[in-house]
Amino acid sequence: TDMMAEGVHFTKKIAPYAIGHKAMGCNISDIAAMGGVPTFALVSLGLPKNLAVSYVEELYKGMYELGKQFNVSIVGGDTIASKEVIINVALLGEVACEDLVTRQGAVAGDRIFTTGALGRAWKTAKHLSFTPRVAEARFLVKEFKPSAMIDISDGLTADLGHILEQSRVGACLYEDDIPLNRGATLNNALYDGEDFELLFTLAAAKAQGLIDWQVKNKQWFFYPIGKIERSRGLTIMGRDGKKKALSPKGFTHF
Amino acid sequence: TDMMAEGVHFTKKIAPYAIGHKAMGCNISDIAAMGGVPTFALVSLGLPKNLAVSYVEELYKGMYELGKQFNVSIVGGDTIASKEVIINVALLGEVACEDLVTRQGAVAGDRIFTTGALGRAWKTAKHLSFTPRVAEARFLVKEFKPSAMIDISDGLTADLGHILEQSRVGACLYEDDIPLNRGATLNNALYDGEDFELLFTLAAAKAQGLIDWQVKNKQWFFYPIGKIERSRGLTIMGRDGKKKALSPKGFTHF
Repeated sequence: TDMMAEGVHFTKKIAPYAIGHKAMGCNISDIAAMGGVPTFALVSLGLPKNLAVSYVEELYKGMYELGKQFNVSIVGGDTIASKEVIINVALLGEVACEDLVTRQGAVAGDRIFTTGALGRAWKTAKHLSFTPRVAEARFLVKEFKPSAMIDISDGLTADLGHILEQSRVGACLYEDDIPLNRGATLNNALYDGEDFELLFTLAAAKAQGLIDWQVKNKQWFFYPIGKIERSRGLTIMGRDGKKKALSPKGFTHF
Repeated sequence: TDMMAEGVHFTKKIAPYAIGHKAMGCNISDIAAMGGVPTFALVSLGLPKNLAVSYVEELYKGMYELGKQFNVSIVGGDTIASKEVIINVALLGEVACEDLVTRQGAVAGDRIFTTGALGRAWKTAKHLSFTPRVAEARFLVKEFKPSAMIDISDGLTADLGHILEQSRVGACLYEDDIPLNRGATLNNALYDGEDFELLFTLAAAKAQGLIDWQVKNKQWFFYPIGKIERSRGLTIMGRDGKKKALSPKGFTHF
């Protein structure tokens, strides 16, 4: 479940269709990141009394159309009056036990991958129009079984931090290998959020298999960006070949 | 799912424990009203930055303790910054197909029952401390199979109105038979909300069976308050033996 509030996650300037798309998309992305298939959604809306009906229709359309693309049915919800626009989507999903991936299976030696370029999503249209990586995640759990997976919502270092903490391991990223969105710096890629790309870890042999697969099949590209290490903490190997420590900051809500 | 907002559903004067109790309780009541058993809850909180941690702890405790009483596990959620306190609970429940009761099965001749006294819940502690009628609802679906059921959140006429609309029937209530909370008038009972009592319809023969049952077993009392009729619309039979039309108003959110 994800809650979004006007003034915190979006402003009145943002098209309501895009807000609806994002509210549904970030939930679908969460289900994908566990290897699941989204099924049913419950949508709660808090709406100021003076809000135009067309605003609400567009908001709902954004949620409905992205949901439809992923066979998500909106099966219920609640609507209340509130001072600011509030959107809560609770999304159910299904996953076979053997396909389930959590944040706690990464082990030393695993390679770290991401499904796409990072950084400055917030400054571009990406955070409002992204396609949740359900197809990629389903492919991965069926063919390669990642040891850990998460979606990048708070930022690369913050979300990798969740994997490291729950797997009780450390990691080193390779500066040269981190794919950047247009206009993004390394810092943007490390600390901005809202890319909604998958971040996952694979045992070394499987990692090689995935790289071989994608040389032959141009369907998707998975970027190898680092390696899980036994010693705790997060470092980055710079262009100069030197390791530097990274703090897992990124977006914090309070 | 139900969303509650500060300034609309509660004020800062209300104890956060009671707000949490209510947020969980109204969702459990919704599951009960369909004949189900609640299972897993997702809790989203919108919290102002200056809110005391103890407030949030008490809010959560109110949800947790009522949930525990009904074997509900809080399995996930989201927390964001917002201008006012916002609480969204999404609750899952399970029900066997043959136990499921909706709002659309009432037929002419059915008797209408409620599980308790109505009116002025909002002015008393009842709307903050009610016990959701899960046990009563499970008893009813197992032993008497109501033709339609709902919980009274918006008010007797408004919620009965939902049954009448979805079952495409009308109804007549008996003024003398409507149980009143202490200090409540007939109008309070008809139009106030937040009692979270069950409102259900039973075929005449089953209704007699239920009345016979409760004469013998003093466990619960189900109040017969009216009758489903073929002709649409809602009327009330007064003490003077005359029928008057009722409008299905009650609480509206906008």
